[in-house]
Amino acid sequence: MIGVHPAWLPASAFRAIGSRRTRVLGEGPVVATVRGEIGAAAAEHGGALVDDGPVDLELVCAPDAGETDPEAFVVGRAGTTTVVRAVDGPGLLYGFHHVVRLGESAFAGEAPPKRHAPRQPVRMLDHWDNVDVHPVMGQVERGYAGGSIFYADGAVRADLSRTRAYARLLGSIGVNRVGLNNVNVHRTEARLLTDLLPEVVRLAEVFRPHGIRVHLSVSFAAPITLGGLPTADPLDPAVRDWWARTTARVYAAVPDFGGYVVKADSEGQPGPFAYGRDHADGANVLARALAPFGGTVFWRAFVYDHHQDWRDRSTDRARAAYDHFAPLDGAFDPNVVLQVKAGPVDFQVREPLSPVIAAMPRTRLAVELQVTQEYTGQQKHVCHLVPQWREMLGFRPWGDDRPTVADIAAGRAAAPGGGVVAVSNVGDDPFWTGHPLAQANLFGFGRLAWDDRVASEAVLDEWIGLTFGETTAVREALHEVMGGSWLTYERYTAPLGVGFMVNPGDHYGPSVDGYEYSRWGTYHFADRDGVGVDRTRATGTGFAGQFPQPWREVYESVETCPDELLLFFHHVPYGHVLHSGTTVIQHIYDTHFAGRDEVARMADTWAKVEGHVPSEVYERVAALLAEQLRCATEWRDQVNTYFWRKSGVPDARARTIH
Amino acid sequence: MIGVHPAWLPASAFRAIGSRRTRVLGEGPVVATVRGEIGAAAAEHGGALVDDGPVDLELVCAPDAGETDPEAFVVGRAGTTTVVRAVDGPGLLYGFHHVVRLGESAFAGEAPPKRHAPRQPVRMLDHWDNVDVHPVMGQVERGYAGGSIFYADGAVRADLSRTRAYARLLGSIGVNRVGLNNVNVHRTEARLLTDLLPEVVRLAEVFRPHGIRVHLSVSFAAPITLGGLPTADPLDPAVRDWWARTTARVYAAVPDFGGYVVKADSEGQPGPFAYGRDHADGANVLARALAPFGGTVFWRAFVYDHHQDWRDRSTDRARAAYDHFAPLDGAFDPNVVLQVKAGPVDFQVREPLSPVIAAMPRTRLAVELQVTQEYTGQQKHVCHLVPQWREMLGFRPWGDDRPTVADIAAGRAAAPGGGVVAVSNVGDDPFWTGHPLAQANLFGFGRLAWDDRVASEAVLDEWIGLTFGETTAVREALHEVMGGSWLTYERYTAPLGVGFMVNPGDHYGPSVDGYEYSRWGTYHFADRDGVGVDRTRATGTGFAGQFPQPWREVYESVETCPDELLLFFHHVPYGHVLHSGTTVIQHIYDTHFAGRDEVARMADTWAKVEGHVPSEVYERVAALLAEQLRCATEWRDQVNTYFWRKSGVPDARARTIH
Repeated sequence: MIGVHPAWLPASAFRAIGSRRTRVLGEGPVVATVRGEIGAAAAEHGGALVDDGPVDLELVCAPDAGETDPEAFVVGRAGTTTVVRAVDGPGLLYGFHHVVRLGESAFAGEAPPKRHAPRQPVRMLDHWDNVDVHPVMGQVERGYAGGSIFYADGAVRADLSRTRAYARLLGSIGVNRVGLNNVNVHRTEARLLTDLLPEVVRLAEVFRPHGIRVHLSVSFAAPITLGGLPTADPLDPAVRDWWARTTARVYAAVPDFGGYVVKADSEGQPGPFAYGRDHADGANVLARALAPFGGTVFWRAFVYDHHQDWRDRSTDRARAAYDHFAPLDGAFDPNVVLQVKAGPVDFQVREPLSPVIAAMPRTRLAVELQVTQEYTGQQKHVCHLVPQWREMLGFRPWGDDRPTVADIAAGRAAAPGGGVVAVSNVGDDPFWTGHPLAQANLFGFGRLAWDDRVASEAVLDEWIGLTFGETTAVREALHEVMGGSWLTYERYTAPLGVGFMVNPGDHYGPSVDGYEYSRWGTYHFADRDGVGVDRTRATGTGFAGQFPQPWREVYESVETCPDELLLFFHHVPYGHVLHSGTTVIQHIYDTHFAGRDEVARMADTWAKVEGHVPSEVYERVAALLAEQLRCATEWRDQVNTYFWRKSGVPDARARTIH
Repeated sequence: MIGVHPAWLPASAFRAIGSRRTRVLGEGPVVATVRGEIGAAAAEHGGALVDDGPVDLELVCAPDAGETDPEAFVVGRAGTTTVVRAVDGPGLLYGFHHVVRLGESAFAGEAPPKRHAPRQPVRMLDHWDNVDVHPVMGQVERGYAGGSIFYADGAVRADLSRTRAYARLLGSIGVNRVGLNNVNVHRTEARLLTDLLPEVVRLAEVFRPHGIRVHLSVSFAAPITLGGLPTADPLDPAVRDWWARTTARVYAAVPDFGGYVVKADSEGQPGPFAYGRDHADGANVLARALAPFGGTVFWRAFVYDHHQDWRDRSTDRARAAYDHFAPLDGAFDPNVVLQVKAGPVDFQVREPLSPVIAAMPRTRLAVELQVTQEYTGQQKHVCHLVPQWREMLGFRPWGDDRPTVADIAAGRAAAPGGGVVAVSNVGDDPFWTGHPLAQANLFGFGRLAWDDRVASEAVLDEWIGLTFGETTAVREALHEVMGGSWLTYERYTAPLGVGFMVNPGDHYGPSVDGYEYSRWGTYHFADRDGVGVDRTRATGTGFAGQFPQPWREVYESVETCPDELLLFFHHVPYGHVLHSGTTVIQHIYDTHFAGRDEVARMADTWAKVEGHVPSEVYERVAALLAEQLRCATEWRDQVNTYFWRKSGVPDARARTIH
C-alpha cells in the first residue's frame, strides 16, 4: 500500500518550530494536541518541549478577562521568546499553526502582541459521505477521491487513523465543524442518529482534540422511518417529543455535538411541505430540540422545482431559493442557520451571488461553497477555486462601502452570522483529494473562512511553501499552473455565465445540450440567432429584481451587466458586442481556443518540476494534466462546433472548427 | 404474488382441439410433450386422449422415406379425422400447434394432405441475461421485463417453472434454439462453460422436450480466464486443445448442445485481434472444437470502432461490419454462422439493410433482429415490430425477382443458411414482456422465422385470437392500437432514417444531440442549414457503395433514395423537397405532431376495451399508454424545438413549437 500524503503538514513544515525549545502551558484535549505536535516536531528537528528554563516559544492557554473568543489568540515576540496566548485550546491550536506558517520569521526580531481571531464564527465542512455505497452515487456523493475516510463496508471504519490525520489537517486551518454524512440521507445513514450513535461517538472523539464539533445530516422523515410515528409533521407534539428525546440522547453521548444539517423538500428529500408546513416550521422543530444543548440546525436553502418543464420559460430555478425563503425572514429560531449556496443555481464555474444572502436581515445565514469539484473538473482538472470564493465572499450586495457577503455570514451586517460551510473534497485516496493540487482548495477554504480578506495568491503561496518547501522554481511553476486555473477552466467550458453544458448525471465533460431539455431548470436557450437566459424584470424571469440596488439595475441592463455574467442574465444575439469589444460568438471561439491552449501550457510548466517534487506527486499530476488537456480539447471542439453549426458565423481568425 | 400470464397459450386457445378425441402415435421427449398438451387440453375441454377407436385427430410421429426434415409436418383431413404426420418430435409439435391455431376450422370439411416446413433452418432467441446482476446493465442487459427467468441470486434458479413455461411458448411458435446468456460475458457467466455446466444441463433438460437446443455465449478470453493459459491466440495449439477438451466436456453433459455465441473484438469484448488474427481464425478455432459433435458457432458481425472521433466525418460505423467481414468471405468453416444485425448500425426504428448480408456468398449468414425494444420504446411503448422484420426479411438486395434476405438466411441464395436470430424480450415480469402487448413481438418473431412470407397483420391476428379470444371489438381495437405502431413510433422519434437522438446510456426518450459528440459513431450533423449523414460514394463515406446494384445507385442519389432513409444516406438542406412533396423541415414537424396524436388515439382506443380484456391486462396497458403519450409528447416537442431553433423555419401550419 502506498503511504498517505502529508498534505500541507509534512515534517519539513515544522522545521522552524521543531528546532526550538518550547513550553506549553494549559490543559485540555486541544492543548494536549498542541503539546503532541510540539513533541513530534522537536523529536524530528532537534528542539525540545520543556517545562521550565528559557524557551524560544511559549504557548499559554489561560483565562484572560479581556478575551472571550475561545478561538482567538495573541502572538508576539519580546527578547528571544515568541509567545502565543489563548483562553482556550482551539485558540492555542490556531496560534500554534500560525507560528508554523510563519516559519523562521516567527523567531526573528521583535513583534508587539497582536490578536488574531477568526472572521467567521462557523467554518464547517460537510461530507457527502454515505455509510453504504449508493448504487448510483457511490460512497461519497460527488466525491472524486475514492471512498470515504469515515466509512467502509457499511459501517464506521474500525481503523480511524485516516480520520485522525484529517482532523489534524482541518484543525491546522481552523475548520471547527464537520458534517459527518451526506445531506441526502439514505436508510443506513439515517441510523447514525439512533442505533449507530456509538459510532458517531467514536468519530466525535477523533475530531474533539482538534477543536472540531461534529454534525449529523438527518432526514426530516426520521420520526416515521426511525421513530415509527405515523407522521413527521413538525407541529405534531409527538414529533416534537421524538426530536427532543432523540436529540437528548445524542447529547448524552456527544456533549459537544454541533447539531444537524438538513436538506428538506429538495430533490426528493422529505420535508415540511408534505404536511402543509413551511421551512421555518420544519427548521424550528429541530432547533428547539437542539437549543437546550447549544446545538444548531443548518437548514439548506437549496430548494427548487426539480421537475421543471423546459417549455416553460417563466419558471426560473435561479429564483427559487429567494421565492421560498425570503418571505420567511424572521420566522426562524435563533439557533437555525439557513445554509445558502453562494450562487443561485448550483456551484457553476461562474454565477452571480445568490440574492437570498442579501434578503434576510433577521435570519442567521451561512454561505455554502463547494470544495469538491463537481462542476469544475472533478479533481481531474486543476481548478484552484480560492479566487472564486474570495470574489464571492468579498461581493458587496448593496454596493461600495456596504457590507460584504463575508460580513453577512460573520454577523457583521445585521443578524448574527451562520458562517461559511463547504462540501469537502477528500476521500481515501492516498493524496486525500485525487488530484494532489486540489489539496490547495481544502487548505484555501479554511484560510478564507478564517479571514476572507487575505489575497488568494498569498493563500496559495502559503500552501505551496508548507507542502513543497521553499524551492523557487517549484513555487513559480505552481503559481503559474494553479493561480489562473479557475479562469482557464471558465474559458474552455460554458461561456459568459450561462452554466451547465455538462454531461447529465456525472457532470463531467461537455454536453452543450445535455441539460437543455431536461427537468432540472438549467437551460441556455441557444438558437440560430442567439443564446442566454433572459432573467430581467422587463422581459425575463425577473430574477435580476431579487437583488438590492445597485445590482438589480446593473444586471437588468445589457449595457451594464458584467461580461462574465451576460448570458446568465440576458438572451442576446451572437453579434452582440461585449464590453471587451468582441462579439459574443467570437468571444466563445476565442476563449475556447485560449482556455485549451492554457491547459497545454500548464502541462508544459508542470513538466519542468520533474525531479523537484516527489515523483509520485509529479506522476499523478502529469497524468491528470494529460486528461485535463484531452477534456479541454473536447470542450473547445464541442462548444465551438455547436455554436458554429447554430450561428453559421465563421471564426474571425479562421482556426479549425470541426 | 400475481399469477403468470399465459401469453398466447391460455386454456381457451385449446378449446377446439381439447374437445376432440385424439390419438398420438410415436415416442420421444417431444412427442411426450404433445401427448401432455393433448391430455391437459382434453381434461379442460371435455375431449379425450385415446389409444384406439375412432378419433377426430390423429398425430403420428413415424419415419417416412420421403421426408428428411425433422421439423416438417403434413396435415390433412379425410372423412371426420384430421391427421398430422411428422418424422420426428419437433415436426409433430409444430403440427400440433398448427392445429391449435386453426381452431374449429381444423375439424371441418376435407383437406388434402399439405406439407409444412420451416423456411429457416435456425430460429433462435438470444438471451442477454446475466447470472449476476451487473452494476450498470442489471440482470438482463437491455431487458425491460424484470429479472432473468433463468437466473436469480447469482445462480441458475432452483425453481425452473418459469423457464419451463417459456420453453413451451417458444416450442409453440417453432423457436428451436436458445442462447442462455449475455453476449457480453462477465466473470460468473463465463463459468457456465466449465464448473457451472451442471446448471446448463438443468436448463437444457427444460428446453429439450420442446425441440429446443441450448447455446452458450462464451468469452474469447476463456482459455486465459478459465483455462489458466497465457494466451487465447486461436492459432496456438494449447488454445485449440483447450477449446476441444472443454467443448467435449460440454457435449458429454449436454449431447444436443447447440454450440456457441460469440461477441469478439466488439465494444470491449476480447477477440482475435489481440493476437494479430482475424475473425475467421477466431471463429474457426471454436468451430473445430464443435464440429465433431455437430455444433455451430454463431459469430457476431457487430464489430466497429466504439472510440470514434465525432470530428472525423470520414469514419462511418455503418461501414464497419462490411469492411471487417466481407474480405473474409470463404474463410469461415462450414459450421460457423456469421450473425449479422439486420441493419448496419444498431436496431434503430429505421435502417437500411446491412450490406454484409449480400456480400458473403460463401459464408453461412444469420440475420439478427431485436425483439427486446432497446431503441423502440423499451416495452413501455406499443411498438409492434413484425412489420419491420417482415420488410427486412423480404428485402431483395439484388433487386426484383432476386433472392430476399430471408432466402439468404435460409440458404436458398448461395451458401447454406444460418437462419434468423433475435434478442429475447422476456423477463420474470408476470406478463413476461413488461408491456403485455409486447408478447406479440415474441410471437411474431417465431412465426416470421418459420415463414417470412406470412402477412404481418395475419400474424398479429393470430396472436390476438389466441391471447384474447374471438371478441370482434377487442380484435379491432388491438389491430388499431398495434398494427401501425411501428410507423407511429418512427414518426415521433428520429426522422427520415437518421437514427439515435436517444438519451445516452439507457436509450430511452429523446436527446437530439445525445450521441452527437460521442465516441459511438452515431451522428446526425444537424446545423442551421441542414441535417443528415452523407454516406454516398461521390461525396460521403462511401457506405452506399457497399450495396450491390440496384441499391448502390438508388441510395447514392438524393433523387432516388427512399424518403424514409434520406437522412441515413444524405445531408440535405431543411428546404429539400421529399418525394412526398413536403420539405424535410415540414416533414419533421408534421410527423412529430402526427405521431404524438396517434398515440393519443391509441390510448382512446384502448379505453374502449375496458371490461373486454382481463382487468390486470387492461390496467397495465392503460398505464403504459399514458407513459407512452407523455414520452411521445416529449419527443415531439424536443425534436420540433431543436429543429426550429436550428433552422428558423416556422411550421407552415403554425402549431405550437416551444
